[in-house]
Amino acid sequence: MTVNAKRFLADLHKLRSFGASGIGKGVVRQAYSDADLASREWLASRMADAGLDVHFDPLGNLFGLGGERSLLIGSHSDSQPEGGWLDGALGVIAGLEIARAAKEAGAAPISAVSFQDEEGRFGVTTGSDVWSENVSLQQADAFTDNDGLTLAQARGRMADLTGPFLPHDRFSGFLEMHIEQGPSLDQSDDRIGVVSNIVGIRDMRISFSGRQNHAGTTPMHLRQDAFQGLSAFNAMLNNRLADVVTPTTVWTIGHVSLHPNASSVVPGQVTFSMQWRDEDAARLKQMEQVIHDLAMETATERGLEVTLGPVMGIEPVAMDAGLQDALIKSAGQSAPNQWRRMPSGALHDASNMASVMPVAMLFVPSIGGISHAFDEDTDEADLVLGLEVLAGAAQALA
Amino acid sequence: MTVNAKRFLADLHKLRSFGASGIGKGVVRQAYSDADLASREWLASRMADAGLDVHFDPLGNLFGLGGERSLLIGSHSDSQPEGGWLDGALGVIAGLEIARAAKEAGAAPISAVSFQDEEGRFGVTTGSDVWSENVSLQQADAFTDNDGLTLAQARGRMADLTGPFLPHDRFSGFLEMHIEQGPSLDQSDDRIGVVSNIVGIRDMRISFSGRQNHAGTTPMHLRQDAFQGLSAFNAMLNNRLADVVTPTTVWTIGHVSLHPNASSVVPGQVTFSMQWRDEDAARLKQMEQVIHDLAMETATERGLEVTLGPVMGIEPVAMDAGLQDALIKSAGQSAPNQWRRMPSGALHDASNMASVMPVAMLFVPSIGGISHAFDEDTDEADLVLGLEVLAGAAQALA
Repeated sequence: MTVNAKRFLADLHKLRSFGASGIGKGVVRQAYSDADLASREWLASRMADAGLDVHFDPLGNLFGLGGERSLLIGSHSDSQPEGGWLDGALGVIAGLEIARAAKEAGAAPISAVSFQDEEGRFGVTTGSDVWSENVSLQQADAFTDNDGLTLAQARGRMADLTGPFLPHDRFSGFLEMHIEQGPSLDQSDDRIGVVSNIVGIRDMRISFSGRQNHAGTTPMHLRQDAFQGLSAFNAMLNNRLADVVTPTTVWTIGHVSLHPNASSVVPGQVTFSMQWRDEDAARLKQMEQVIHDLAMETATERGLEVTLGPVMGIEPVAMDAGLQDALIKSAGQSAPNQWRRMPSGALHDASNMASVMPVAMLFVPSIGGISHAFDEDTDEADLVLGLEVLAGAAQALA
Repeated sequence: MTVNAKRFLADLHKLRSFGASGIGKGVVRQAYSDADLASREWLASRMADAGLDVHFDPLGNLFGLGGERSLLIGSHSDSQPEGGWLDGALGVIAGLEIARAAKEAGAAPISAVSFQDEEGRFGVTTGSDVWSENVSLQQADAFTDNDGLTLAQARGRMADLTGPFLPHDRFSGFLEMHIEQGPSLDQSDDRIGVVSNIVGIRDMRISFSGRQNHAGTTPMHLRQDAFQGLSAFNAMLNNRLADVVTPTTVWTIGHVSLHPNASSVVPGQVTFSMQWRDEDAARLKQMEQVIHDLAMETATERGLEVTLGPVMGIEPVAMDAGLQDALIKSAGQSAPNQWRRMPSGALHDASNMASVMPVAMLFVPSIGGISHAFDEDTDEADLVLGLEVLAGAAQALA
């Protein structure tokens, strides 16, 4: 089979006309919006034109089925409220092009998919989450968006299109191509990333409580300043983690809330988010211990009280060895010495699919590491190179 | 003249019945509220009973005039939205008692005052600020409270009571007794503080801008994390200031605002308040240089942009040497070896009065350093001791 790079790029650019932001190549195409629904009907027509059987499941996940049982390739076509044109759209159109090329060539069938609401207007990776039965449809139906609309109400907009959920064993495996959404490939000479693992995430809320006091009348040595506690904790944390982490481990304090948050008041309380990600569950646990011990220690040293919230977690997901090998071989042929194995720091639909079938993922560079923004972009040469690596692996696996 | 401690305490407790919070001894008596207006009418009646001439100026500052020209003693009787019973009320009732005792004794006349809106519902120390002409009445009339009400509208509620502003030269000086509102006296064996200076304040807003990024896909070494910039700045600041400050210097980061403030996003921007206070204007300037240089340095080292807002300032105010000496002599007699000289870390009406007449201040301990809270309190023995020291000085000065 032979993929058609020109047709692939034309479809990719056509898709961004649905919900075009008018700023750069950006899109505004949230799940179940008018733009999303129109784009799914267009995608369905492109699938039908390619001779694929179109199927919408109850969530609005859109399948272009190449045969009775096949490899599945795709991603999601919904976007962030202010999204980039590639994000999930790249993987969806790559899946469409490869399933179409297989059909044209009379090769082993390949199916394409566009999952719904990966960007989490309602849940997190909602479409693949429900289909893989990580969450029940009944639970998910009660999820609400920021305006209080339920998922049940939103997916009602597509009710005339949808049929039943497909059985998972209809598919032999799932391949997802995606932009990296980070700067690693862009800042290197590599143009392809073969994903080894999708990292696990730990997220918790920590509070330090001290004594809220007048910023003029409270001497420095008598203060129990919650912000100073956070600052000391953060400085020590960066030191303590140095012995535990690898170059791909990340940790972030992204949310900070002071009380009463006034310039003339010594902060009595601070609540902050502590998030860390790594591909190794054991390392995530080690980091949790460091964070826990240091928070307790900081509180004791500074006369603060500490509250450690529950540790929310998403487990690391290993990519299937066989599928990964097929991607590695194909990358070696199409992009010799320009590919690397790397973990995915972001969640993807592949995380959910891994619980019901073998999965693997492929990254292409994000210019400047920018994603979830109107100026998200990738060189078209890299998009086509990614398509070729993916098609080569698919042909070997199908 | 002889002050009457029992009558003084009875009046002080009576005053807290206006706007009593029902929680401890706390009061809710914001400037121009029903409770404030009722308390001022009661205060005016107590002044009249004492033989003082009652006068409200256009702001609602309430005077009990003991004679043609006299020493003035007082403070403010408005409270914070959730205020303590002593705060300014203590100084007002002390002024009333001493003016009353002078009248009874046929001694040199003394006048009492309760300033309006010291707590800044509309401005900052508004009543004394306008009377001392630091701000014009026309400007102040446009000040609004949190609900958008103007000062002009609020003071309109007292229009039937008010007369003209009094000439400043009617008064030979101003004495203000206040609770410390900090823990220094309470944590020592001293029971009286003779204020040397009211500290100057510098307040500025600093922003660090980095690069907002995905907390999963952005490696640590490629981050430009604005929060990490703040944390590093804060840690270094505490070191750098060590050589510049005295034990009474204070500095505070009380307000912090991250953007976008989400656990999964590397913070792209942080804006924070930097406030510092000292009794020496030269030291305030030195600290400003340290803060400025360190902010620039932190930004350069971490690839951040820094924005330094304007430095807002209130100058340090020295207490009058003659009035201070009178307080020191009186403290030496009434509280031998139990008094100290100390700066005031908080602003007071005395700061404004210092621009139009000689002023001095006296502190009594705040239990636990607590103020601006319902559980603000002071031992009654200390309240009475403060009254005696103040009366002794007033008698010497009047």
